[in-house]
Amino acid sequence: MAEMGHKSRPAFLRVPPGFPSPRSSVSLIVQKYGGTSVGTPERIRNVARRILATQAEGHRIVAVVSAMAGVTNRLIELADEVTGEGQPTEREMDVLLATGEQTTIALTAMALNAMGAKAVSLTGAQAGIETDGVHTKARISNISPAGVHGLLDDGYIIILAGFQGKTADGSITTLGRGGSDLTAIAMSAAINADLCQIYTDVDGVYTCDPRVVPEARKIEEISYDEMLEMASSGTKVMQSRSVEFAKKFGVVFEVRSSLNENPGTIVREETMSMEAVVIRGVSLERAQAKVTIAGVRDLPGTAGKIFGAVAEANILVDMIVQNVSKTGITDISFTVHRDDVSKAEAALLPVLATLGEGATLEAQDGIAKLSVVGIGMRSHSGVAAEMFRALAEAGINIEMISTSEIKITVTLAEDQIDAAAKVTHAAFGLAE
Amino acid sequence: MAEMGHKSRPAFLRVPPGFPSPRSSVSLIVQKYGGTSVGTPERIRNVARRILATQAEGHRIVAVVSAMAGVTNRLIELADEVTGEGQPTEREMDVLLATGEQTTIALTAMALNAMGAKAVSLTGAQAGIETDGVHTKARISNISPAGVHGLLDDGYIIILAGFQGKTADGSITTLGRGGSDLTAIAMSAAINADLCQIYTDVDGVYTCDPRVVPEARKIEEISYDEMLEMASSGTKVMQSRSVEFAKKFGVVFEVRSSLNENPGTIVREETMSMEAVVIRGVSLERAQAKVTIAGVRDLPGTAGKIFGAVAEANILVDMIVQNVSKTGITDISFTVHRDDVSKAEAALLPVLATLGEGATLEAQDGIAKLSVVGIGMRSHSGVAAEMFRALAEAGINIEMISTSEIKITVTLAEDQIDAAAKVTHAAFGLAE
Repeated sequence: MAEMGHKSRPAFLRVPPGFPSPRSSVSLIVQKYGGTSVGTPERIRNVARRILATQAEGHRIVAVVSAMAGVTNRLIELADEVTGEGQPTEREMDVLLATGEQTTIALTAMALNAMGAKAVSLTGAQAGIETDGVHTKARISNISPAGVHGLLDDGYIIILAGFQGKTADGSITTLGRGGSDLTAIAMSAAINADLCQIYTDVDGVYTCDPRVVPEARKIEEISYDEMLEMASSGTKVMQSRSVEFAKKFGVVFEVRSSLNENPGTIVREETMSMEAVVIRGVSLERAQAKVTIAGVRDLPGTAGKIFGAVAEANILVDMIVQNVSKTGITDISFTVHRDDVSKAEAALLPVLATLGEGATLEAQDGIAKLSVVGIGMRSHSGVAAEMFRALAEAGINIEMISTSEIKITVTLAEDQIDAAAKVTHAAFGLAE
Repeated sequence: MAEMGHKSRPAFLRVPPGFPSPRSSVSLIVQKYGGTSVGTPERIRNVARRILATQAEGHRIVAVVSAMAGVTNRLIELADEVTGEGQPTEREMDVLLATGEQTTIALTAMALNAMGAKAVSLTGAQAGIETDGVHTKARISNISPAGVHGLLDDGYIIILAGFQGKTADGSITTLGRGGSDLTAIAMSAAINADLCQIYTDVDGVYTCDPRVVPEARKIEEISYDEMLEMASSGTKVMQSRSVEFAKKFGVVFEVRSSLNENPGTIVREETMSMEAVVIRGVSLERAQAKVTIAGVRDLPGTAGKIFGAVAEANILVDMIVQNVSKTGITDISFTVHRDDVSKAEAALLPVLATLGEGATLEAQDGIAKLSVVGIGMRSHSGVAAEMFRALAEAGINIEMISTSEIKITVTLAEDQIDAAAKVTHAAFGLAE
């Protein structure tokens, strides 16, 4: 990705709008509006007004838009109807789905023009977004931003189609789930944007799900790593791949609501002050199941056999826990989504037979996961102890435990997850 | 248009399917399906089956498709809603409208693939169709068919988006009314297709409108010039610009129905046998009006003033008749569509004042036009006399008369047009 920007830009250029900033410093902002934000003509006009307001603050703007809510599903229905028993070709599925964003860019650009602005739409291909050829889930391989720069220099607001690109030989591709976020982040990197704003239907990232913990606070700033761990633990504001991309290219982004004017959560490289906070947030994930293969002889290759079989069945495995015993016999447990349990069992039965006598397979749903995340825990001991103590005092039993450098995750009974989140949130003083 | 084909291909290669032809001669056929033919998923599957049947006859195929019926209107509604009082930018209108055909190409290609065929979709831009930058009514400036040839050589059926292209700098353009026909004809020229089939909801070109003259016959073969004169006289099977393009590049095309298997009408360079027929058909046009400026001094520049004013008001003028009198005072009459009469009057009033005393302006609607068309009339005298005699015998009064090399047009009272068409059709023996 030779033409992409890198992290060398000084941090003072990255002041987000709304934050105190000298009026004279014109900055380049990438905004992203999801399908709900552009779901009706009236909402598209609202988005246009918001873009105009940002421009009026003195900024240059590239706005990435998704397909209008519902459009993608209708296109998929059409594809199912014309193919009948057959399967839609993935290349053609991309040609079809790309019309959704193309419709939105045209409507948004003409709405802006009708309001007296100077706006122009670009498809992914026109904006120089090149991908590999893996249709329906392509990866961005390069962005040639010369055209975008030229239009910005000519004073245009650019309305860019999210979710799509083209291959080197000109076929239309789409980027899969979360693709519009990725477009915004990647274009921000390519054009050295000062800030990337991801507009969504939530106000930002919270210390915990406010529907579970009413005292949860919006987080002002969070590091990429914390955001990634929060995302992988169920706080699905954004797909991990977009956050990883932002981290790799040092793109500062803000998650904020398109429904109000509140500042959102800034996601960026960690700073000294971030480390002063031990725990950034608590995240939870329901509808999990635990699969345990017990009585396995502890031989090289066993885990490979097991997870090879699970991966081949296209099942997403999350926590994996193994505890080696002194007898040379061990148990391997992992969590999957509740809906994947029977698929996992079916995939593992043939493997079980090869693991020798005494090996058993057991699955149990009704499980949930609770995680605490914070880069501050790297320099603080005792976080795990504090968490376990709080849960124990509330009479909540822990089943599996797994830790990363900045995250501690436990599984527990699903019907105790709300109580567990509340006591953990309180134990780390996150409401203050 | 350096890369386009020309007329040098021997005529024997242009045998249409359905006509007796040796099974061994694989030919290259361009088909065009309009919005009604692809209006529902089930109809798209029918189109796919028809394409497969053509392939099974041993042909290679490029199929040009329009937007599904109704889609374009819905997109225009959306544009009106997002722009409110304002006007949609034409560039963005093209980006928006182009999604209509893009949706159809994807659906048609995946329908074919689901039936076991090997099909691939191309947008206008991907197919190398380059246009000027006049958005919403662009003109094709060049076609680079290398990509299309490559895919055909690889055994693909190509599903091509009609109505669209791109400018040299990559903006999406649309070709305006009749644009999909034009795409089919122009691509036929560019890839040296053996035949271009225009599928529509009529069986072909008839000697007269069968709703008016029940004995009207379908014409087997017609020359480009006759087709052009028929089109300009109200038989709107195709826009003139597509026929002119076909004539310029020697593209043989067939107008036929997508609702049945009947052979249609072949349109081609005139042949000796075509000239044996004096009159090919009778065409009629209703809802006309006559505008007369009388008492005009016959000075150079007068007609220029009059039609300059009318053209500036964007009014389509059809027949123009002027008869110079010996006194140096003349009348100029022309026909316009009924709906344009008051606009024409308003445009001409300022001009009238400059034409000197005695000049008057008069408009009259309730007029219709009747034409006989045939390249054979070039070598036969007496066609006009025969037509006027037949009309007179039926008691029908003629108002204006205008002739071209292969057409005679008269205006008459609109309520007599059906009777006039019947007697003229009979007078030239067109039912036989």
